[in-house]
Amino acid sequence: MLHGHNVIGFDTTKKGTETYQSFSTLQGATLPGSFHIATDEEIEAAIAKAVAAFGIYSKTSFQQRAVFLETIAEEILQIGDTLLERTHLESGLPLARLTGERDRTMNQLKLFAALLREGSWADAVIDTALPDRKPLPRSDIRRLLQPVGPVVVFAASNFPFAFSTAGGDTASALASGCPVIVKAHSSHGGTNELMASAIQAAAKKTGMPDGVFSSLNGEGATLGQRLAMEPAVKAIGFTGSYRAGMALYATVTQKRKEPIPLYAEMSSINPVVLLPETLAAKTNETAAAIAASMTLGVGQFCTNPGLLFVIKSQAADTFAESLVSALSNAAAGTMLNQAICTSYYKDRNKVKQVAGVKELYSGNDESTSYKASPTLFAVSATDFMVNPSLQDEVFGPCSMLVICEDKTELEAALNSLHGQLTGSLFGTTEELTAFTATIDILQQKVGRLIFNNVPTGVEVCHAMVHGGPFPSTTDARTTSVGTEAIRRFVRPVCYQDCPQHLLPVYLQNANEAGIMRKVNGVYTRDAIV
Amino acid sequence: MLHGHNVIGFDTTKKGTETYQSFSTLQGATLPGSFHIATDEEIEAAIAKAVAAFGIYSKTSFQQRAVFLETIAEEILQIGDTLLERTHLESGLPLARLTGERDRTMNQLKLFAALLREGSWADAVIDTALPDRKPLPRSDIRRLLQPVGPVVVFAASNFPFAFSTAGGDTASALASGCPVIVKAHSSHGGTNELMASAIQAAAKKTGMPDGVFSSLNGEGATLGQRLAMEPAVKAIGFTGSYRAGMALYATVTQKRKEPIPLYAEMSSINPVVLLPETLAAKTNETAAAIAASMTLGVGQFCTNPGLLFVIKSQAADTFAESLVSALSNAAAGTMLNQAICTSYYKDRNKVKQVAGVKELYSGNDESTSYKASPTLFAVSATDFMVNPSLQDEVFGPCSMLVICEDKTELEAALNSLHGQLTGSLFGTTEELTAFTATIDILQQKVGRLIFNNVPTGVEVCHAMVHGGPFPSTTDARTTSVGTEAIRRFVRPVCYQDCPQHLLPVYLQNANEAGIMRKVNGVYTRDAIV
Repeated sequence: MLHGHNVIGFDTTKKGTETYQSFSTLQGATLPGSFHIATDEEIEAAIAKAVAAFGIYSKTSFQQRAVFLETIAEEILQIGDTLLERTHLESGLPLARLTGERDRTMNQLKLFAALLREGSWADAVIDTALPDRKPLPRSDIRRLLQPVGPVVVFAASNFPFAFSTAGGDTASALASGCPVIVKAHSSHGGTNELMASAIQAAAKKTGMPDGVFSSLNGEGATLGQRLAMEPAVKAIGFTGSYRAGMALYATVTQKRKEPIPLYAEMSSINPVVLLPETLAAKTNETAAAIAASMTLGVGQFCTNPGLLFVIKSQAADTFAESLVSALSNAAAGTMLNQAICTSYYKDRNKVKQVAGVKELYSGNDESTSYKASPTLFAVSATDFMVNPSLQDEVFGPCSMLVICEDKTELEAALNSLHGQLTGSLFGTTEELTAFTATIDILQQKVGRLIFNNVPTGVEVCHAMVHGGPFPSTTDARTTSVGTEAIRRFVRPVCYQDCPQHLLPVYLQNANEAGIMRKVNGVYTRDAIV
Repeated sequence: MLHGHNVIGFDTTKKGTETYQSFSTLQGATLPGSFHIATDEEIEAAIAKAVAAFGIYSKTSFQQRAVFLETIAEEILQIGDTLLERTHLESGLPLARLTGERDRTMNQLKLFAALLREGSWADAVIDTALPDRKPLPRSDIRRLLQPVGPVVVFAASNFPFAFSTAGGDTASALASGCPVIVKAHSSHGGTNELMASAIQAAAKKTGMPDGVFSSLNGEGATLGQRLAMEPAVKAIGFTGSYRAGMALYATVTQKRKEPIPLYAEMSSINPVVLLPETLAAKTNETAAAIAASMTLGVGQFCTNPGLLFVIKSQAADTFAESLVSALSNAAAGTMLNQAICTSYYKDRNKVKQVAGVKELYSGNDESTSYKASPTLFAVSATDFMVNPSLQDEVFGPCSMLVICEDKTELEAALNSLHGQLTGSLFGTTEELTAFTATIDILQQKVGRLIFNNVPTGVEVCHAMVHGGPFPSTTDARTTSVGTEAIRRFVRPVCYQDCPQHLLPVYLQNANEAGIMRKVNGVYTRDAIV
């Protein structure tokens, strides 16, 4: 039973009269449930509660936050099949995928809980006093990462669990000690309500302050921009289109009085470099892997392989044929929502018009049933380099073969690339060694370099970097997946000659939590005596 | 003997006809030496060399970079008294201060060298492969902080050594593996030339690539903006005025096609909270400490104590009298340059006009001899809060007493503050404990909280945070002093299933450098076997 309300801390309200509904691309019909767009009063209440909650929540122990995150995971599981079924209808995504994504979402929460229990993430650095130093004594100086304040998270359509209401941005912000206000995605209002209620229940159960979490219904251009302008909001996590991301970027950097960090993951076409020997030796196997990666999730991943670089050869021709054959056997898949499906065919048609672009395979337009069929284009590296529009993301199962004359042209083409989340290289060890300069060029363009594997599939772990140079994100210094994502919502605070009992517990001499600290330049878990 | 040239990698050129000279506020006269403003050709050469150097320099070992930094320190010392004497004339700063600042500058270089030799700063994180994991195997994933590319450093007038050509920004950027292009400060062209030549000599001696360092002469509004627009420039370090900093911020966030990080330290008035008991018990002692901090370096520090918060009391009155007496005994001091001196008196007069502001002490206008005399204003907290212009920095020996009715008004006044580099509290341990909520408010506003000490004096160490919320800087997540400053010029890069020999050496199984790494969630210096 969906209520259509906004979650404002521990309250649920629907004071507005304007509503939206979810449309099912699977059923071609509007789903039951009307979601009330947050009113000014409701937005202000969520902000005020977040500000009040920050004072309390920022001082909770890592242990307390860990329990909160683990309880959110439990509450999500408790929703049971109701969640999976509703999200299946709202997103068009298969139940098996959603079951896996729910697991990942719970595991993300648990991984941040484990990071908190271990505690060393907060980068405690201590330089003790040197009262006898000449010419001047040294003060006692201690530094810790501290939460920045209320964080706004924009839910994404393509990961209704893992990058939405209770997804990675929310998990990492809550882990850091920041209250979160989610801007729900209008594609999956029901999913959002179920997830927001789970977080609200977990907050109540674990004694977290009222306002540690809120979720508001509304549109990006109105509610989203409004939240980005709020002086009390201190950081934003966003996953979505380049256009929406850059509109937010203009707001946080120029329209706000106080600029704040925006972590927007926007647009990536994930180049894959297929080196000659490997391509020749494993032509069909590679084509099958690429086809599977291209069509996984109907191509609706930010790590979808959009560019395939090859050096002109017989093997490259055979590879193209094999890839076309694999794609022509792939069924069209239901897309997330109507807008994404419309854009897919529109953007695909735009690419067809570009001079030098050849269509190698193009499945039927099945937009009337909201399905996308795969597409493969080819272009020479020369034409690729003179047409920057070929670097615009086509969101869906569409890739382009970029055919290079030789290694020099391959390197020039890679050099012309915008920033990307990932770059993949398929090659034998000998080949890769011979292409070290090529790898170096690719490294400058990406957040993650992948060897002999496709870009889809983002491991949630400590070492992951899901981020990259502009325009793949607005901040290449961070990741939105993996435990390091917590760094986005903290800043270092330094305490000089602070009395022990007024220091954060993680900086006190005793080191009760036993975390790893850098004390006078030496890493240690020891207490200071 | 000064040549007036630009340093372009290993070359020195002066192709332009436009020049500027240094003016000595001590002598009231122009100094010998004409510095040639860099031409387009020279700027382009510096950029091209930096790009070429990046490919080589980014791959040098931490050890090699450490030797380079240590050699720069040696070369600086080698310049000898010529450096100190020229800078004394160019900056008006006393020789004793400059000798200390030169030591600090060499020590900064050596501290980064030590950080590099230890090696753990690069945050190596490794999650090894789990080929048997169900339902899917895990790849081998490794992450390291890597340099971003060529960095532009703007030299500052108020620290001609420590925040200029071979200062902290240059040291941290070179340590990270980024080539540096310095925009010289037009106040101290001779100092810049001597320092740039020292860095050039060190680069040659230690086998660094041509282009790892350049220094260009020119103005902020022209050369500075031009460099900030260069696509090849990937980050900027800046210390200077709010106006110049925000002009750069607009450029990097909106005018550039690819936004880049700008680390601008701009404006801070460093609130000092004087709690009642301490103020009563140590009235004169505290007044003497504040007067010394206010007038240190003629108040030309970004950590100058600009705001003194007291709660109305007899002790507060006595403190004000004592402070006035101390200031009236302080001699006027020669300022860094003509523009700063003109601004000081202009800004001081502006404050006098604000409703409710009382002038407690105001030394004579000695602008004809480029000297600043100290000033103390007073204002009620009520008037302070309704006049945001009272938060504009007056660069020089000027402070304002903010008189609060009670603790509640003190907290309200602190809540109204913009972001600051530092916040100080003077109080007994019992008092501080009773004012915990006040401390929490102050912490939200600053990068460094100081207990029972003045804000001037920034220790160069591991735990230092010289940074803070806007407008004190444009990026509160970083510091420009201390070893953590290196983080400004790196981004994480992730390697998935990368062959061992193609990995950066710090991520290879052997861990030859013995650095601290996080392997499968555990901190260790062990090799992976």
